[in-house]
Amino acid sequence: MATTVTAPRGMRDFLPADKARREHVLGVIRGVYARHGFDEIETPVVEDSARLHSGLGGDNEKLAFGVLRRGLTTEDLHTAEAPLDLVDLGLRFDLTVPLARFYASHRAELPTVFRAVQIAPVWRAERPQKGRYRQFVQCDIDVLGEPGQLAEIELIRATTAALDELGVTGTSIRINDRRVLTAMLASWGVTDPGAAERALITIDKLDKIGANGVAVELSEMLGQDLFDTAELTLTIEELAHADWDTAAGADWLDVEAFDDLLRLRAALPGVDLRFDPTLVRGMGYYTGTIFEVAHPDFGYSLGGGGRYDGMIGRFLGQDVPAVGFSLGFERLVDLVDLPESATSDAVVLLYDKDADPVRLAALKGEALGSHQRVRLERRTKNTKNQLAGLAAQGFGAFASVGADTTTLQGVEFRPLA
Amino acid sequence: MATTVTAPRGMRDFLPADKARREHVLGVIRGVYARHGFDEIETPVVEDSARLHSGLGGDNEKLAFGVLRRGLTTEDLHTAEAPLDLVDLGLRFDLTVPLARFYASHRAELPTVFRAVQIAPVWRAERPQKGRYRQFVQCDIDVLGEPGQLAEIELIRATTAALDELGVTGTSIRINDRRVLTAMLASWGVTDPGAAERALITIDKLDKIGANGVAVELSEMLGQDLFDTAELTLTIEELAHADWDTAAGADWLDVEAFDDLLRLRAALPGVDLRFDPTLVRGMGYYTGTIFEVAHPDFGYSLGGGGRYDGMIGRFLGQDVPAVGFSLGFERLVDLVDLPESATSDAVVLLYDKDADPVRLAALKGEALGSHQRVRLERRTKNTKNQLAGLAAQGFGAFASVGADTTTLQGVEFRPLA
Repeated sequence: MATTVTAPRGMRDFLPADKARREHVLGVIRGVYARHGFDEIETPVVEDSARLHSGLGGDNEKLAFGVLRRGLTTEDLHTAEAPLDLVDLGLRFDLTVPLARFYASHRAELPTVFRAVQIAPVWRAERPQKGRYRQFVQCDIDVLGEPGQLAEIELIRATTAALDELGVTGTSIRINDRRVLTAMLASWGVTDPGAAERALITIDKLDKIGANGVAVELSEMLGQDLFDTAELTLTIEELAHADWDTAAGADWLDVEAFDDLLRLRAALPGVDLRFDPTLVRGMGYYTGTIFEVAHPDFGYSLGGGGRYDGMIGRFLGQDVPAVGFSLGFERLVDLVDLPESATSDAVVLLYDKDADPVRLAALKGEALGSHQRVRLERRTKNTKNQLAGLAAQGFGAFASVGADTTTLQGVEFRPLA
Repeated sequence: MATTVTAPRGMRDFLPADKARREHVLGVIRGVYARHGFDEIETPVVEDSARLHSGLGGDNEKLAFGVLRRGLTTEDLHTAEAPLDLVDLGLRFDLTVPLARFYASHRAELPTVFRAVQIAPVWRAERPQKGRYRQFVQCDIDVLGEPGQLAEIELIRATTAALDELGVTGTSIRINDRRVLTAMLASWGVTDPGAAERALITIDKLDKIGANGVAVELSEMLGQDLFDTAELTLTIEELAHADWDTAAGADWLDVEAFDDLLRLRAALPGVDLRFDPTLVRGMGYYTGTIFEVAHPDFGYSLGGGGRYDGMIGRFLGQDVPAVGFSLGFERLVDLVDLPESATSDAVVLLYDKDADPVRLAALKGEALGSHQRVRLERRTKNTKNQLAGLAAQGFGAFASVGADTTTLQGVEFRPLA
């Protein structure tokens, strides 16, 4: 028997108040996405290991938890060359790889343009730290089969509507296009795909290492003689402060992609859409538009996504346009102030330890006839604390039932809070 | 890249209609349990491997999926003695072991009598077969900290209320007590705990192998000279047909336990509670009352549970009385006829492939102002099929929007079904 009784490292138990709060926030998000015409699906928590390690998951592949094959012998262990030889399944590290697999499997049963919702946990064996967990929930919406901007528009509208409904105000959407990044790198002479990919990984670290850090790393990576680091630092700083107006007409700009982004902006009145040519988004599979939800109070994004037109094709053998937007639920749930509201329709019957169970059950049945939610609760020594706890759980009134209580008629319910 | 795109063996994808139905049924169950004063909690899907293999899970322990330790070297594999040496975590095979661990971890933050709800998936590496899956959802309610019958009464009331709310009628609850079984075996001379445990495993197979099969196996197991197999067959047949009236006064009966069951019966008017002295329930941890939901149309139970007073103590070092009732969600969801009802508040805007996305997005926004749920849907060749599919997803009306539609004012919505 294990001696520790805590949840596994980096994972969490949710007590009733936390769980209620999480379910409430999920319910709001789920409701908005359904309202906007998206359809919820579900896939198993594990996928074939070969699929999880096929190069689509980027760095997350290294963080996948592997599931040991069943029926292995000691000899199997001793002849294995690497740990991955012993696993056939793995816990998913995102909801995008499973969605691509799902779509390839069920395409014939789905509409031409499929608007998917997935609200489910994913697992990453990261070093646990504040705000980073090894099991966490993602809320993804994706539009598959739509090559045009309708996909981006519907995704951004649904996401901002969900944030509004949650009362998360003041957010903006940083937006860019992979084509803008490609043209920008080409304007610096970086055209080799491998070099471009490495350069993007560096630019993605701008928030952490600053313009000078990025310039130094880029110069080292791409050949110092090509770049003057000081000049590159200035260029990157300029890019970091670019907006719709300053970017227009710049020599590094992919005009076609920028015009597409301008059209998107025009189609989304009321959304604070901000052009950011330094926005990269980590995953290698993005091919077009990319975006992130920013909030002035936080250094991290509340969600993000983009267009990944090539990915489904790797499963299906036929390209299918795709765009996705993922909300970071764990960050949101901490931001949102949505306690369960106490109501006098939710009542507590407080009883003493030696009360007759048959009578208590009958009283509970009677209370359920006239109230929405009924808790039988044994009285503790610190009744005041106990009542405060029940109020926090949404109960609005209580009554004490004693040895002589045979009916609730005439029994007084008092407010809890 | 893996070539198959189906879900892993024995596991399932859920398409929108299935997912909606499952969420609806879960919502009903969750609602009834909250109404009855139970509190939902959540634990991680994995637990420490040592805990999953500590003897509390019975046969299910062998079915646990193991999670490979991270950072293993080839040498680690080659010096391992058994597969379990290489895993530190495992996917939970039930919700009872995690609940016991949760309670031991958080007892100080929980009420004296804790009424828990857990609605979550579990995993078992069973041979896949019709109706048996490797990932499936369990709906458990448990009362921890209540030694008296109030626990059983509240659990059975809440469970039957959930079945009622789901429209599953005609169920009965088979009930027994482990003490009845112990006394019955003692009346046959079986008092050794190991022998008694093996005998219970055999009696548990009554449905499958019949009274004669059980008698033969028991005779062989316990020494043929002690038993006349023909006589034992008759005895077991008699037990299988026993009810409240015929059992009363029988020489094999534990009178105290039976009186407790009679009291329970009296406390649950309206519940079809049937005494069954051959009901065993597989798990070794049960100590008192045990019960199962039976339905006349099905050879299998829809759920079950019982009292397991000793188990929490193994985690906490201090005994805590506990009773649980688990509903078999996967069986229930097939029984329940709760399609999402179509409503004219949920509408479809049917558009053609070349429609302008900006205009479509604006029309969707307009529709969201006056309808609860709006789907933009690209028209397919077989519009009739398409509309029928949308009706099945709960949409109640549709309108076609063409190149000249700039507002929905004056546009006619027609019923879908």
